[in-house]
Amino acid sequence: MNAAARLIGIGVGPGDPELLTLKAVRSLENADVVAWFAKSGNASNARNIAMRFLQPAAVELPLLYPVTTELSTKDPAYQEMIQGFFDESAARIADHLLAGRTVAVLSEGDPLFFGSYMHIHVRLSKRFPTDVVPGITAMSGCWSAAGLPITQGDDVLTVVPGTLSRDELVRRLRQNDPTVVMKIGRNLPKVRRALIDAGRLDSAIYVERGTMQNQKLMPLADKDDERAPYFALVLVGGQWWRP
Amino acid sequence: MNAAARLIGIGVGPGDPELLTLKAVRSLENADVVAWFAKSGNASNARNIAMRFLQPAAVELPLLYPVTTELSTKDPAYQEMIQGFFDESAARIADHLLAGRTVAVLSEGDPLFFGSYMHIHVRLSKRFPTDVVPGITAMSGCWSAAGLPITQGDDVLTVVPGTLSRDELVRRLRQNDPTVVMKIGRNLPKVRRALIDAGRLDSAIYVERGTMQNQKLMPLADKDDERAPYFALVLVGGQWWRP
Repeated sequence: MNAAARLIGIGVGPGDPELLTLKAVRSLENADVVAWFAKSGNASNARNIAMRFLQPAAVELPLLYPVTTELSTKDPAYQEMIQGFFDESAARIADHLLAGRTVAVLSEGDPLFFGSYMHIHVRLSKRFPTDVVPGITAMSGCWSAAGLPITQGDDVLTVVPGTLSRDELVRRLRQNDPTVVMKIGRNLPKVRRALIDAGRLDSAIYVERGTMQNQKLMPLADKDDERAPYFALVLVGGQWWRP
Repeated sequence: MNAAARLIGIGVGPGDPELLTLKAVRSLENADVVAWFAKSGNASNARNIAMRFLQPAAVELPLLYPVTTELSTKDPAYQEMIQGFFDESAARIADHLLAGRTVAVLSEGDPLFFGSYMHIHVRLSKRFPTDVVPGITAMSGCWSAAGLPITQGDDVLTVVPGTLSRDELVRRLRQNDPTVVMKIGRNLPKVRRALIDAGRLDSAIYVERGTMQNQKLMPLADKDDERAPYFALVLVGGQWWRP
């Protein structure tokens, strides 16, 4: 195998291009191929964030999801389509690696924290030299933008996806840890009800497109509609904190 | 107040200086005063990480802890000393801000995630214009170095400090979430026993000085002594993962 062949998962952070690390920028500058995920017909958020650092000579490799939220993730048809998509994406990347190229795979936030990159990583990292460049997570970007000290001392941080059932969300929220609820989108009404049931709505901050130019940030109690993009999140401060 | 007066909490990441963000570097280059925490008589880890980006003209402001682990954090004497130390540190920083200077406060990892900076933030951010520059957390640096996909899909991430009681650690670990145990140090024997009690020792990876040149990374089960620095952590993969 050519010595240059290397798979690199690159975290591009939450949105502000200045939140890429020096290592991410250098890795992008040295990549022969830059792969990114997007929903078919949509722009890639990760590519938008990293665009200014892409080299003109780099080959771009779009990996286009055949399905995202149209089907339940529990639906066998979804499972089959999505596993086939990751298998095929990994095969396309492997072809470049076998040709001796360095392939960067972009991830919003951090590659191994709820990132699509991990599906490539588990398929290829035992076959090819692999690096992972950590990125600023969306939650770090959001609590920094909110000026919210999320954890101190003996605090436990709990990070839950809004896709959990209302009962499970309530159970987790009743532990009274500082909590981050990710993947809000269509789950916002359920997340709001769970926060009310757990008595914590008044400690919740809603952040949409955190660190981007069109960022929205407000106490969740002040948000008077239930529309939210998938990449919104809710920060719930610990017991000693109020917005 | 002079328009330049600004407090900036800067996350310098887990150890590798290349893991500073572009924004952190630019903020450091524009700072008149660079403050950092250290134990009296010790070097500052955060300063070591950021050293190459400090401007020769910048004034350094060491903030030296009068006490760290000599007393229990529950001891009233500790509480009084540490609150007095943060009050005095904030006052020293406020003097620079009142003189119209931009003051950067360095934090290892992310400033508002278990960082000392937050004690300055809560004292000064309502009085002075304040920015927080998020940093790569130690845990992101460590799971990236380990190549461990920490969370996917509907996973819940739990981050616990090793300072919790053994019973509480076991309770948290029995939830079978992907879990990060921070603040290992002298708590390693207790953390190991809690992992055994919860049946999860075989999923645990020990990481010391993650992303630094002298990084140590191994399955915890293979670590045959109980010595660990405070800045070690343990990653416990989810149910579908084994080291």
